[in-house]
Amino acid sequence: MFIKYLIYYYSMIVTPWEVSGEIDYDKLIKKFGTERIDKKLLDRIENIAGEVHPFLKRGLFFSHRDLKWIIDEYDKGNKFFLYTGRGPSGDTHLGHLISWILTKWFQDKFGAKLYFQLTDDEKFLVKDNLTLEQTNKFAHENALDVIALGFDPKKTTIIIDTEYSKVLYKEALKVAKKITFSTVKAIFGFTNESNIGKIFFASFQIVPCFLESIKQKKNVPCLIPCGIDQDPYFRLARDVLPKLGYYKPAEIHSKFISGLGGGGKMSASIPSSTIFTTDSPNEVKTKINKTLTGGRETVELQRKLGGETEKCVIYEYLYYLFENDDKLIEERKKNCKSGKILCGECKNYLTEKINKFLKDHQEKRLKAKLIVKEFMPDL
Amino acid sequence: MFIKYLIYYYSMIVTPWEVSGEIDYDKLIKKFGTERIDKKLLDRIENIAGEVHPFLKRGLFFSHRDLKWIIDEYDKGNKFFLYTGRGPSGDTHLGHLISWILTKWFQDKFGAKLYFQLTDDEKFLVKDNLTLEQTNKFAHENALDVIALGFDPKKTTIIIDTEYSKVLYKEALKVAKKITFSTVKAIFGFTNESNIGKIFFASFQIVPCFLESIKQKKNVPCLIPCGIDQDPYFRLARDVLPKLGYYKPAEIHSKFISGLGGGGKMSASIPSSTIFTTDSPNEVKTKINKTLTGGRETVELQRKLGGETEKCVIYEYLYYLFENDDKLIEERKKNCKSGKILCGECKNYLTEKINKFLKDHQEKRLKAKLIVKEFMPDL
Repeated sequence: MFIKYLIYYYSMIVTPWEVSGEIDYDKLIKKFGTERIDKKLLDRIENIAGEVHPFLKRGLFFSHRDLKWIIDEYDKGNKFFLYTGRGPSGDTHLGHLISWILTKWFQDKFGAKLYFQLTDDEKFLVKDNLTLEQTNKFAHENALDVIALGFDPKKTTIIIDTEYSKVLYKEALKVAKKITFSTVKAIFGFTNESNIGKIFFASFQIVPCFLESIKQKKNVPCLIPCGIDQDPYFRLARDVLPKLGYYKPAEIHSKFISGLGGGGKMSASIPSSTIFTTDSPNEVKTKINKTLTGGRETVELQRKLGGETEKCVIYEYLYYLFENDDKLIEERKKNCKSGKILCGECKNYLTEKINKFLKDHQEKRLKAKLIVKEFMPDL
Repeated sequence: MFIKYLIYYYSMIVTPWEVSGEIDYDKLIKKFGTERIDKKLLDRIENIAGEVHPFLKRGLFFSHRDLKWIIDEYDKGNKFFLYTGRGPSGDTHLGHLISWILTKWFQDKFGAKLYFQLTDDEKFLVKDNLTLEQTNKFAHENALDVIALGFDPKKTTIIIDTEYSKVLYKEALKVAKKITFSTVKAIFGFTNESNIGKIFFASFQIVPCFLESIKQKKNVPCLIPCGIDQDPYFRLARDVLPKLGYYKPAEIHSKFISGLGGGGKMSASIPSSTIFTTDSPNEVKTKINKTLTGGRETVELQRKLGGETEKCVIYEYLYYLFENDDKLIEERKKNCKSGKILCGECKNYLTEKINKFLKDHQEKRLKAKLIVKEFMPDL
């Protein structure tokens, strides 16, 4: 309730279950008490990795907790591991891939192990209309999208909560013993009418923060790339873990990518506003054609005044996700603002980019079925 | 809180974690809303079993929910299964064996399967001073006492919660989704400062009520022999299970056996007041010698006035647990009340009876180590 009302007061809602309103990321940093990812940090990352991922350079990942410490430790030879995940309430869409793609980049550049958690338990507990069998099925489908991104099977463990509960439950109990109802009430806005599974669940989401420390029998730093809406879980983890003798996990937070209708984050609950990884080229074309742009009311006006890239979802997708070339994106912006190009051209360009990405992804997704077991070893 | 205060008002406390004060079992039946086990029910049991166990005949088990229904279904050919358990917070003592012995009798006489749950998770969550490693170790120790009683390995599954969590967690989630914090607050007296593990735990204790129904893929009646202090869990189970499509579990409730110091139930937290299954003959002798009796202040007074069996813990143990012969117990009572025998004699008699039982039990307990795995199959 606390955070929800606080954020609502500033006319935006950001909780693990709801993101809506006009998001002011500067205010979010202030309210959540996180830090902005600055040039100095990016330079240090570039020094190690030899490059900076576009998601970092263009500010799609904008906020962090303890990222400086993660790099300090790395420089000292104390390597971190990665942890991210997904609540499997439906098919995977482009919005989900953001954290996963950056996680993959960190794995490649820093040689980091990854625990990827699929919380079929959580989605069953919070969604009235979903059965556990359904969320578990979604978890298995989502896992194929994770694998399709090319994670190293030797360094990656995909955890489906109900299937790994023999390991997770024991550790979750230790976490749960340190958390009161008052605390989760304040952080997640639970009420007396919340179900007791939902109340307990945070314990399960916290466990992967120290799974690698258990495995290595020593404290291993953990870096969590995630949407900033997931921060409440890990803020809680940062409170609890030192009490169990583990490091606080570090986090790196992304902005939300808009739904094709604009406003709020891309959400599977509005399929027409969402690009799923399983969409056909025609579906993508149709969805993109209907997308909200920064175009003017008439062609004449647009030729005269130019488009408004800052209001354009097509431009947002190109800028953050599909046009990595700095020169080309600059040029496109200029040509839009000068009225030289119209919305149809950008829509076609983005459709081509997305369909090229999806064709490749869908092929890899099919192949993923053959190697899925390698990613789910006994713990 | 609700129950705790209600019961406290009548100067006794009966919750799953605390039993104290002078227990009035008639009031408990009224307050908990259970039914007394009457002659008619006992006759029906005798008709099937060919006998009535002394614990039933002498009223150590005095209360029930739906026992009549269990027998009705049995008569129709719809066999029930048994479920009981133990919170492993220490070594096993005589008080624990009461439900287990009656459960064994039901297994023998009615050919019933048994799920025996050892809640190492619960005891870790509710006891500040115990680690999960400790409660798990106690669970394995307690399991030996269960097996020593002679349960049929083909019909008995001993479930240690943290070790069976892959099966239990999935089902517990379905239970948890149907229970709100308000409900567990009212039933167990939780507060906002209770830890979220404790709040969730009831879900785990409810699962074995329908494990056999899952296995047989049809609804199977469940009978739970337990101390009446455990009723809140199963009252909750009776509320939830129909919502998941299962029968309400039936229960049969025992009284508490007194600690050797008298008052409240035998508890491992006062070792000198408790007979553990691992006690040596000398330890038993020492403890029994110090036990509170119904004897008078001096030998002269006792010869003159006779002892008070109704206040005597030694007599209570003989009556309920160790002197099944109706004639002999009547005779002892008469001889005590007439001043013919003194406390020393009864103490020696009980010590002998207990030590004979323990000698046999301890031998079987040693052998149990060889067959423990048969009782813990994959589910």
